[in-house]
Amino acid sequence: VGTRAVDLGQRSETVRRANLSALLRALHLAGPLSRSELVARTGLTRSSIRSLVGELVAAGLAAEEAPAPSGIPGRPSPLVRSVPDGATVLALDVAVDRVAAALVGLGGTVFASREIDRAREAVTVESTVDELVTLVASLDDEVGIPDRVVGVGVAVAGLVRRADGMVRMAPNLGWTDVPLGAILGSALATDVPIHVANEADLGALAELRRGTATGVDDLAFIFGEVGVGGGIIVGGQPLTGAAGYGGEVGHMPVRADGRACRCGSTGCWETEVGEEALLALAGYPPDGGRAAVEALIAAAGEGDARALAALEEVGRWIGVGIVGLVNLLDPDLVIVGGLFARIHPYIRRPVEEQIERRVLPASRALVRVVPSLLGVDAPLIGAAELAMEPLLSDPAYWIGRSRGTPELASA
Amino acid sequence: VGTRAVDLGQRSETVRRANLSALLRALHLAGPLSRSELVARTGLTRSSIRSLVGELVAAGLAAEEAPAPSGIPGRPSPLVRSVPDGATVLALDVAVDRVAAALVGLGGTVFASREIDRAREAVTVESTVDELVTLVASLDDEVGIPDRVVGVGVAVAGLVRRADGMVRMAPNLGWTDVPLGAILGSALATDVPIHVANEADLGALAELRRGTATGVDDLAFIFGEVGVGGGIIVGGQPLTGAAGYGGEVGHMPVRADGRACRCGSTGCWETEVGEEALLALAGYPPDGGRAAVEALIAAAGEGDARALAALEEVGRWIGVGIVGLVNLLDPDLVIVGGLFARIHPYIRRPVEEQIERRVLPASRALVRVVPSLLGVDAPLIGAAELAMEPLLSDPAYWIGRSRGTPELASA
Repeated sequence: VGTRAVDLGQRSETVRRANLSALLRALHLAGPLSRSELVARTGLTRSSIRSLVGELVAAGLAAEEAPAPSGIPGRPSPLVRSVPDGATVLALDVAVDRVAAALVGLGGTVFASREIDRAREAVTVESTVDELVTLVASLDDEVGIPDRVVGVGVAVAGLVRRADGMVRMAPNLGWTDVPLGAILGSALATDVPIHVANEADLGALAELRRGTATGVDDLAFIFGEVGVGGGIIVGGQPLTGAAGYGGEVGHMPVRADGRACRCGSTGCWETEVGEEALLALAGYPPDGGRAAVEALIAAAGEGDARALAALEEVGRWIGVGIVGLVNLLDPDLVIVGGLFARIHPYIRRPVEEQIERRVLPASRALVRVVPSLLGVDAPLIGAAELAMEPLLSDPAYWIGRSRGTPELASA
Repeated sequence: VGTRAVDLGQRSETVRRANLSALLRALHLAGPLSRSELVARTGLTRSSIRSLVGELVAAGLAAEEAPAPSGIPGRPSPLVRSVPDGATVLALDVAVDRVAAALVGLGGTVFASREIDRAREAVTVESTVDELVTLVASLDDEVGIPDRVVGVGVAVAGLVRRADGMVRMAPNLGWTDVPLGAILGSALATDVPIHVANEADLGALAELRRGTATGVDDLAFIFGEVGVGGGIIVGGQPLTGAAGYGGEVGHMPVRADGRACRCGSTGCWETEVGEEALLALAGYPPDGGRAAVEALIAAAGEGDARALAALEEVGRWIGVGIVGLVNLLDPDLVIVGGLFARIHPYIRRPVEEQIERRVLPASRALVRVVPSLLGVDAPLIGAAELAMEPLLSDPAYWIGRSRGTPELASA
């Protein structure tokens, strides 16, 4: 995540806006920071920093505070930090087996979050939207949603068209061509921007900004649940693909004549390594859901041979898929989230064996496979980052119009 | 390939250099162009264009010429074009079964090219370098290599470390950790910059700039020969990976328990679809090389059942691998080159069948699979583009030091 600023020595409006953005982004991602650290991170001069910090402070987006005593002689540099309630976003997550909502402030502060677990079956758009509206009302009761939020970010377990946030296809929800952003705008009675994106893409963004991958430019985030989602970061940028459907790792063929997949193909990665495959291999009902998975993991912990063999076999196929990603993408890091993070202690060795056996030595020397630290909340955290992005990209625009920002009606 | 220029209304040196770059790049890629077209392409003002074109003309990099009569009343806009011998690069290609060299000028003009076919077996670095030196001497005899070339670009059938151009691993050449750039610099007695990169990455660059993919931002270029190489473009930028080893599509596992691969794994894509697999399936000697492939294609043309069945089966597995790439990358375009372009008429249908069956509908609606138009020369053309890139990125630097550019000794 580059925060290098433009500094051409001119005072043009364009340059000022770009510099304000670099500064606010640094505070949002890494703050609190001293002015000296801001100079180092943004490449701006000390006098530019002083003037820009002043603007952010005046707009209520940043604050300066006395530094902790450093023990070094001389007057220590004051710390600049973002103000969490200077800008707030609403983050929503529509997963197969739960919906969740959070109110998140500048700097990543989570003011409150709520979730509803639900049966793992096809759900209507209407019931999902009702649940989200209930969650938002509950957040409002708990902490009060500000009159003005910067935006709403929504993570969805499905393919989302980049141009307009249309949920093109969510096989595990049973949805096709759902204009979720528009529906939510109406249900929440708001006209703030609503940004909809794929859950794994947002999980990758969360890992990059708030998780295991800060400072990493090339990573693959793999999120196992009922299906397997993927979020890919290439050269510091999300791999969206031509229309926004990139990163569908769950549908790489790894065993062309394997199990039938919901997508219509056979031997997709997710049919070999998803929750249902794991449960079936261990002799549990494939539709047993999270409870069955927990029972399986408990049995493995007690040395149950069939559970251990199922985890080993699934681990082997998780490894095969990771090998394809590593040879293709040459990432620094592969982060396994969701179910895969939960079973990581059992799959670590078979995954490493496949990597050892199949990844080209040059890429193998570099890559690490680690479990996500953000757990099931990764997509929700990514949704908050997505909703904050327009403010970070051009704070001057938001400062200028902040008096006229449309309101999010309390639902 | 963005050629949008920075125009802040200031006359700073930084802005001037960026604008000069945008202008020269537009002429190199799309010229000749009228001044009006340059305004449209770069976003610069007409007066900026006039002044910058003047600089390029003075430096011998561009020329203006009278326009063709347009039939439209008024004085027609003069055409600006790049001057081919205003800047020249040397492009080299080290493939398994041939080496090639070309002298290429600004705008992509190929002044001359030469190649040497060779046996398809492990070759020493020394013999390869000798062959390249011979080719360069022969180009010099034919058209005369200018005293000053901008750079040398080298395409290699292997994994190349981005940072220093080290050929880390080229299994089909039998090379490990070869500092090819340094060796060539010494053999050619030159100190101009030598840029070494993977052949398929350069093939993708060539397709993007001079081939089937101009104007496309997301593409996968797949280059089948003995092995299978890949060059991936994501959001208009080459996917290099963390260390430069990205795009190794040949080693995606598509049939985990399949044939043994040279890399040590089994069931890699290239072991299922490379030249040897095709020849073996059709009953030809797997090491029969290009001649055997041509015989096989001729037999298929005459309706030979075994040849047709082999092409069908290989086409099916080519399709399976393409499915993985499309679901992962959501590209606009998949370009098949080398062997795959040669057999394209026979594999088109089985590839389409796999895509129809296995690619998610959203991505399927978008993607096209087409044969390369550049043929085996794609990597060589890409090598020329790579070598030209420093000039295109900062023409002012090159103009300033052009009197002192190091010479390429005629070999």
